[in-house]
Amino acid sequence: MQNFEFYNPTRIVFGKDTIAKLAEHVPAEARTLILYGGSSAEKNGTLAEVRAALAGRVFQEFGGIEPNPTYETLMRAVETIRRDKLDFLLAVGGGSVIDGTKFVAAAVAYTGDAWDILTTHGACVGAALPFGTVLTLPATGSEMNSSSVITRSRTREKLAFGSPHVFPRFSVLDPTKTYSLPLRQVANGVVDSFVHIMEQYLTYPAGGMAQDRFAEGLLQSLIEIGPKVIAQPDNYDLRANFMWIATLALNGLIGAGVPQDWATHMIGHEVTARYDIDHARTLAVVLPAMLRIRKEAKRGKLLQYAQRVWNLHDGSEDERIEAAIARTEAFFESLDIPTRLSAYTIGADAIDDLIAQLDAHGMTALGEREEIGLDVSRRVLEAAL
Amino acid sequence: MQNFEFYNPTRIVFGKDTIAKLAEHVPAEARTLILYGGSSAEKNGTLAEVRAALAGRVFQEFGGIEPNPTYETLMRAVETIRRDKLDFLLAVGGGSVIDGTKFVAAAVAYTGDAWDILTTHGACVGAALPFGTVLTLPATGSEMNSSSVITRSRTREKLAFGSPHVFPRFSVLDPTKTYSLPLRQVANGVVDSFVHIMEQYLTYPAGGMAQDRFAEGLLQSLIEIGPKVIAQPDNYDLRANFMWIATLALNGLIGAGVPQDWATHMIGHEVTARYDIDHARTLAVVLPAMLRIRKEAKRGKLLQYAQRVWNLHDGSEDERIEAAIARTEAFFESLDIPTRLSAYTIGADAIDDLIAQLDAHGMTALGEREEIGLDVSRRVLEAAL
Repeated sequence: MQNFEFYNPTRIVFGKDTIAKLAEHVPAEARTLILYGGSSAEKNGTLAEVRAALAGRVFQEFGGIEPNPTYETLMRAVETIRRDKLDFLLAVGGGSVIDGTKFVAAAVAYTGDAWDILTTHGACVGAALPFGTVLTLPATGSEMNSSSVITRSRTREKLAFGSPHVFPRFSVLDPTKTYSLPLRQVANGVVDSFVHIMEQYLTYPAGGMAQDRFAEGLLQSLIEIGPKVIAQPDNYDLRANFMWIATLALNGLIGAGVPQDWATHMIGHEVTARYDIDHARTLAVVLPAMLRIRKEAKRGKLLQYAQRVWNLHDGSEDERIEAAIARTEAFFESLDIPTRLSAYTIGADAIDDLIAQLDAHGMTALGEREEIGLDVSRRVLEAAL
Repeated sequence: MQNFEFYNPTRIVFGKDTIAKLAEHVPAEARTLILYGGSSAEKNGTLAEVRAALAGRVFQEFGGIEPNPTYETLMRAVETIRRDKLDFLLAVGGGSVIDGTKFVAAAVAYTGDAWDILTTHGACVGAALPFGTVLTLPATGSEMNSSSVITRSRTREKLAFGSPHVFPRFSVLDPTKTYSLPLRQVANGVVDSFVHIMEQYLTYPAGGMAQDRFAEGLLQSLIEIGPKVIAQPDNYDLRANFMWIATLALNGLIGAGVPQDWATHMIGHEVTARYDIDHARTLAVVLPAMLRIRKEAKRGKLLQYAQRVWNLHDGSEDERIEAAIARTEAFFESLDIPTRLSAYTIGADAIDDLIAQLDAHGMTALGEREEIGLDVSRRVLEAAL
């Protein structure tokens, strides 16, 4: 096991009717900005519940944060907060709204050019406004971590930052708030959390027994409930398990003390930035190709994955590995998520541009051993066609 | 899944040579009291490392905290802190020293009779001195939770309290500091953490998929490494895994959103208080008897335990359940930990006294359904003879 620090001070308030408890968690004297995305938070009643819970408190609202939240939109929220001297943020939405709120929280407290926060990957963040979240879409884990991904529309750049200053103070997770989600978003969430786990698990054996067992348990659970959570939108137990699993998939726990990959995410981000394809859908395309191209480096863990997650015991090592990757693809496809670039009519002629983007963003030594250069990324994209 | 709140702000600093980082985590201006137990922390060099890491800082030392830490000893530490105006505590040791430090932290900040903290189970705790820990004995999980068990020598009472004010600010876990532990204590630690997991897992099916998988993964890992961690005291990977597993066994995570039992602990506490038998050893005696006596109430989870943890698939339900309990006993015995009261020459004539103690401490409705009255506890003790 590698040395590690684990620290996660976010309070999770989980279950039915928990939005009503918001006033216990938002400081009484706070001047709050409620940030949300499109119209769904209004339509499904979540915003109304939030307003009711904060009745009598000082708050304003800021809607319109996009999927893949943009710097341009978020800087308007920063202006509002400065102008009206607001001092607490409440994100109501999914990972995009929460990621955006993290950026806003850091940007309000930063005196330089706020884009520095992204280009330094958070190193320049010395403080942030406190904030909580009300999660409506299980997927990214942003509700219980200190990372964020922001897009700059003008330059089509999609960059990540992290800082211990942007852990949510609390996150309210009410599984019933997910009942009205579009099934496409639920399927995306299943794939997103699945790949989050794989980025922290499918590297090389590092002797983290609890980390491996936890990761395998989360993967097994997602495989068990994935199709059901889509087929039965108002099944509380399914949605509750999905919601908690998606949070646990990326709250620092399963990645503590073990190597992490994240190359699939980095390549996927470029596909989203260039073609505006849903984040999770880019991961479903890149991951199987990544596992095939990096089979030798990942052999030990691929065999463990085949055995413990997919219960594959027969055949040669290579057969078991290929079967496990094929099962992974079939799982994604069973959720109506394609696993090939061609499904999005992206062909071989697109690869040069994507590689140039990776190069421009310094993504030239990716993966758990930093051995994925642009040449390997090219082979991954070719294998994903 | 049940509604829950999960909050755990303790920072874990894990790995080789991490004691040297103490100065990063103890506030620079702190006037620290270092609390420890017997002579082992001195002999194995841990205290010397702590002193070196805090060189130039203001600190004092308080040794002599007992296994099953006593109110009487701890109140002397409280006096020292008040007299010398100390404002930060650093526990160096195992669960007893950390539990004792939690009590001291709360008692210093409490103006009434400090024994109230135990009789109210922590409800009267409104503040506590901040503290960190350097863990030397993996077992209780106290390094990453807000609970504590204290004994009053005079009255032979052993009572628990918990409060969000007594989470450690940080805990340093260096697996190499466990190399010199007596093997008896290591074996106790394996059993203690095993039973912690069982108290949160082996109840009734409640639909917590991640919680079940995590618990099962920790149990499987302990079964895999238990005998080896004793046979190979200086195997870093074994000790590191054991240390992290013992922490995860009782940091609130696997018990969030699911029922919890704790009857085995409550009965075990009375055996320790009356006969001074190591805490873990009382658990090894009580747990198998508890599972047999409560077989019907726990049937669903016992079958899951048999299948997923012990890989038992053959025979009738009752046969699989009995086999799983027998495997559990054999696992404890393989660590040289007896599973019968008779091993401690405690006979049937002792039971009346133990039941009277349970009654005196209000332990009359134990377990996940609060249905274990004194009559059931009596049958458990009889089955453990």
